[in-house]
Amino acid sequence: MTENTQILFKSRPTGWVDASHFEIARVPMAEPAAGEVLVRNIFMSLDPYMRGRMRDQKSYTPGFELGQVLQAGAVGEVIASNDPSLAAGDLVEGRLGWENFSVARADAVNKVDGNVGSLSHYLGVLGMPSMTAWVGLRNIGQPKEGETVYVSAASGAVGQVAGQIAKMQGCHVAGSAGSFEKAAYIMDELGFDAAFNYKEAKSLGDALGQACPKGIDVYFENVGGAMLDAVLLKVNPYARIVACGMISQYNLAQPEGVKNLATMVGNKVRMQGFIVSDHMDLKPEFMAEMSGWLAAGKIKYREDITQGIENAPAAFIGMLKGENFGKQIIQISDPPA
Amino acid sequence: MTENTQILFKSRPTGWVDASHFEIARVPMAEPAAGEVLVRNIFMSLDPYMRGRMRDQKSYTPGFELGQVLQAGAVGEVIASNDPSLAAGDLVEGRLGWENFSVARADAVNKVDGNVGSLSHYLGVLGMPSMTAWVGLRNIGQPKEGETVYVSAASGAVGQVAGQIAKMQGCHVAGSAGSFEKAAYIMDELGFDAAFNYKEAKSLGDALGQACPKGIDVYFENVGGAMLDAVLLKVNPYARIVACGMISQYNLAQPEGVKNLATMVGNKVRMQGFIVSDHMDLKPEFMAEMSGWLAAGKIKYREDITQGIENAPAAFIGMLKGENFGKQIIQISDPPA
Repeated sequence: MTENTQILFKSRPTGWVDASHFEIARVPMAEPAAGEVLVRNIFMSLDPYMRGRMRDQKSYTPGFELGQVLQAGAVGEVIASNDPSLAAGDLVEGRLGWENFSVARADAVNKVDGNVGSLSHYLGVLGMPSMTAWVGLRNIGQPKEGETVYVSAASGAVGQVAGQIAKMQGCHVAGSAGSFEKAAYIMDELGFDAAFNYKEAKSLGDALGQACPKGIDVYFENVGGAMLDAVLLKVNPYARIVACGMISQYNLAQPEGVKNLATMVGNKVRMQGFIVSDHMDLKPEFMAEMSGWLAAGKIKYREDITQGIENAPAAFIGMLKGENFGKQIIQISDPPA
Repeated sequence: MTENTQILFKSRPTGWVDASHFEIARVPMAEPAAGEVLVRNIFMSLDPYMRGRMRDQKSYTPGFELGQVLQAGAVGEVIASNDPSLAAGDLVEGRLGWENFSVARADAVNKVDGNVGSLSHYLGVLGMPSMTAWVGLRNIGQPKEGETVYVSAASGAVGQVAGQIAKMQGCHVAGSAGSFEKAAYIMDELGFDAAFNYKEAKSLGDALGQACPKGIDVYFENVGGAMLDAVLLKVNPYARIVACGMISQYNLAQPEGVKNLATMVGNKVRMQGFIVSDHMDLKPEFMAEMSGWLAAGKIKYREDITQGIENAPAAFIGMLKGENFGKQIIQISDPPA
């Protein structure tokens, strides 16, 4: 009998998530029923939206259920199949569990190609976060050559890609992140035109003014709160705010108030939320374009890989605090040789 | 010599506007130079956006200049012309002054037809506020039959029209206003499906929930602040927020914070500001459609007419506090018989 380590959702956080909200269980590996496969999980994705699934309220994804295994996007190897569509040895990605081995319906996972550099790419640069950046700019941000695009959480899973796409489109691209090291990475490695460490900025307004001397035409919004307020004082006429996420607010019992929304009227600003899963019809186009950019070296992508499923709770908590540097991934087992 | 009473902009308010920010001057009536006309002002419009022009900061209209006559949309009669395009007796509308008589460039005013019920209509139901409602719904709100449209400041210059247009489009229309009398007017006279007095609501959320039992698909936003926050908890997926104005915030030295913006992400909400003057290409279409509705009795429009230019400051202050009931107009002189 092979043991399966699982991370269960023990209790609902009201403010910051901590270790007490998780429970580690060790159970026997399950068997796939008819139509199911057993997957050895290799890489698992941790994403800020999961904080929303921990709430007991209507959200765009169903909430996590207390006492159950937490869910996440993951990529793994089929080790037993009870469905003709998949065979042992196939590599798949899908919504699986925070665990070593997941049983899934064969039609709920997608077969993937192992020849993409790293299988973890399916959770990042060739996966949901990157497609989020791509769709958000394509459908909402719509940057034009010469415009200024500002990206918050710019070294994160989504922000890295958003900034690099905007750069390819001929924009002045500025980004912020939570350390000097991250800010340097954004400029030196990703080619942003300007970057700052928001945690050390004396004034967000001054930092934005320096990074975006011509004002902001597109704001790729990942953080919300005080950052959004500062941006609203720098928006140009007809600016677009791509409301992708507001991670600074997720762990606050009472969110910060945003005071400067009235600037949206006079500046005719459009702020629009979106969820990437509404746009799956665009996935083939995204995969083709992003794979091409990746192969051509036009997109770089940094991952922050934590080893071991039992370390997932701490990595998740750290990510919500911005302690990761790049896309947060959990490596659960080794990829095939 | 005929005397001209003028209202000058004496000092900039930082919070609420009061009488000390205005000064009354009595000067001789001016003469029109070449290319100019002298207009006897008949009706003048007071609108919330003017509060923005009192600030010493970039806005979508140039700020009022201290010591100068305040400006406003007005309609009047040409009493002397020094330009071949207009003659004494012509009726015109344009951006004129808070005064009995204005000198204006002939090409800066538009000739209007006196046969429209009341000349004041050019400042309201056939003018800027009504076109604001029409454009905002047309370009941003885009209500579909069966959807719920909620309008704040619904008995005001813009709100009345927004709600009635949405009603004609087959929507469930709810509105709020600042008295029981106004709320009753919205339902009984304008045909809204639901209305409430926000000042007496124990909870804005509960009041919205009752008025909009299926949630909110389109919010015609005139007030901002706490009302917007309450709406953000009631929005349906893909809701549109027409950011027309945020009058509740204009007189606050420190605006209220809006805490619930994160709901825009999961509900894919679009909030968009606009300025009607960007859309003047649509004016002929607007005038044709609105004139037809007005003639057919499909649009009702309530005006709150204050007599005498010297009472304009008090009326303006009252309007910012919601004391007007309907479109605020100043009658400066009598229309032609």
